[in-house]
Amino acid sequence: MKILLTNDDGIYTKGIEALGEHLSKDHDVLVAAPETEQSAVGHAITLTDPLRVKPVNRNGAFFGYAVKGTPADCVKLAINELMESEPELVVSGINLGANVGINVIYSGTVSAATEGAILGVPAIAVSVNTFKNPDFQPAARFARLLVRLVEQHGLPPHTSLNVNVPAIPGNKVRGVRITRQGVTRFVERFDRRVDPRDNVYYWQCGSTPPFEEDGDTDACALASDYISITPIHHDLTNYGFMESLRSWSFPSISDE
Amino acid sequence: MKILLTNDDGIYTKGIEALGEHLSKDHDVLVAAPETEQSAVGHAITLTDPLRVKPVNRNGAFFGYAVKGTPADCVKLAINELMESEPELVVSGINLGANVGINVIYSGTVSAATEGAILGVPAIAVSVNTFKNPDFQPAARFARLLVRLVEQHGLPPHTSLNVNVPAIPGNKVRGVRITRQGVTRFVERFDRRVDPRDNVYYWQCGSTPPFEEDGDTDACALASDYISITPIHHDLTNYGFMESLRSWSFPSISDE
Repeated sequence: MKILLTNDDGIYTKGIEALGEHLSKDHDVLVAAPETEQSAVGHAITLTDPLRVKPVNRNGAFFGYAVKGTPADCVKLAINELMESEPELVVSGINLGANVGINVIYSGTVSAATEGAILGVPAIAVSVNTFKNPDFQPAARFARLLVRLVEQHGLPPHTSLNVNVPAIPGNKVRGVRITRQGVTRFVERFDRRVDPRDNVYYWQCGSTPPFEEDGDTDACALASDYISITPIHHDLTNYGFMESLRSWSFPSISDE
Repeated sequence: MKILLTNDDGIYTKGIEALGEHLSKDHDVLVAAPETEQSAVGHAITLTDPLRVKPVNRNGAFFGYAVKGTPADCVKLAINELMESEPELVVSGINLGANVGINVIYSGTVSAATEGAILGVPAIAVSVNTFKNPDFQPAARFARLLVRLVEQHGLPPHTSLNVNVPAIPGNKVRGVRITRQGVTRFVERFDRRVDPRDNVYYWQCGSTPPFEEDGDTDACALASDYISITPIHHDLTNYGFMESLRSWSFPSISDE
């Protein structure tokens, strides 16, 4: 297949390199990834600045395009301009750190996959559950196997797969669980400081504490040493509340 | 009620001013909004830069806090640091330009409301369907009326309302429709240029063409001169595909 590979940690990282190596064994891979780290940019796109693009070599050979933009920008630009024909799959990762629970909506890695799905291309986002110098090989091997399954089965329209891999040796991984997005989230704290010119500023900090939730969520699967795969889409409608909302007595604006 | 008011067009815009005026008639409103335009930032949060905050006056009186950050940053920072107690409602807007269809996922205006919902505070995002010098008064009047209804009925957990108002005089608005998020989306084009030092760059441009869709979507309601209200949440799981995905034969990583 023709695969577009991107990420949000930037083109010069180990995660995208490992994924590129493994996927290139079976497929024609083009890399277009942010020039610098774009973590927590969510589904941002760049409208007010130009997107600069430059070719990047690795080990003496062309590796891909570095884009001064967000992961969603990379996917849009690659599909519209950088690739001669449309890819059959978008793969995003491997991200340093899990993308599970509510945190998924802040994730540049996942948004790149979502952007593929919006543009009609099946997509996969892959993350590994640690921030500390992980071995990307198990996740990269699994991604290659999963790509074969996606090639065989296809994905429904506008759907991508959010994959999280435990940061343990491959032979310790207990298997795969199909999960839903849980409620794990970053709980922020702000560190208030005053600069030498008496201006107040804050550092956003905080952590992602474990949340109590039942067994079919992404975070639960990871915590039990399973790979989690959550099928995601971009329809934010809360269908369950529509009927009840219709019963409200809405006034007309000109009533005032 | 105690209301946190924010937006994505920036604190110095007419849309947030109009909304502030109308909501202050009934409520205790605190404004915390981006210092500069943050359109299309999606659900980005700022982790690598400090968030600077400064008080802003308007017409000689304190209007609110300008934050050097995204709409989601503003909501997090206001609730955690700037407000003495938690707000009972987050209102975001009035955005210049509709936030309907797939475009909703790029919207800073909607993400501010979603962030409120994530933090357990009911939330409303309000947009007006034009980019050209609109009269914000009808949308601001409607927002005030809607806030009363939300106060009366409440919203389910983790749910916010995405409200889009046609850019026509209030007495021409035909009513309110409860809608789902449609498939309207920005279709990009990239304008390729070369700078004086022979570096390639691209401007992301494009437009949002009308999409064929049936009658209960946000864009359809707007096009028929109705106010659209879409209840949204942040669960991206495609539940309908989970069962089918479970039937795939996943290999173990150590198979390789």
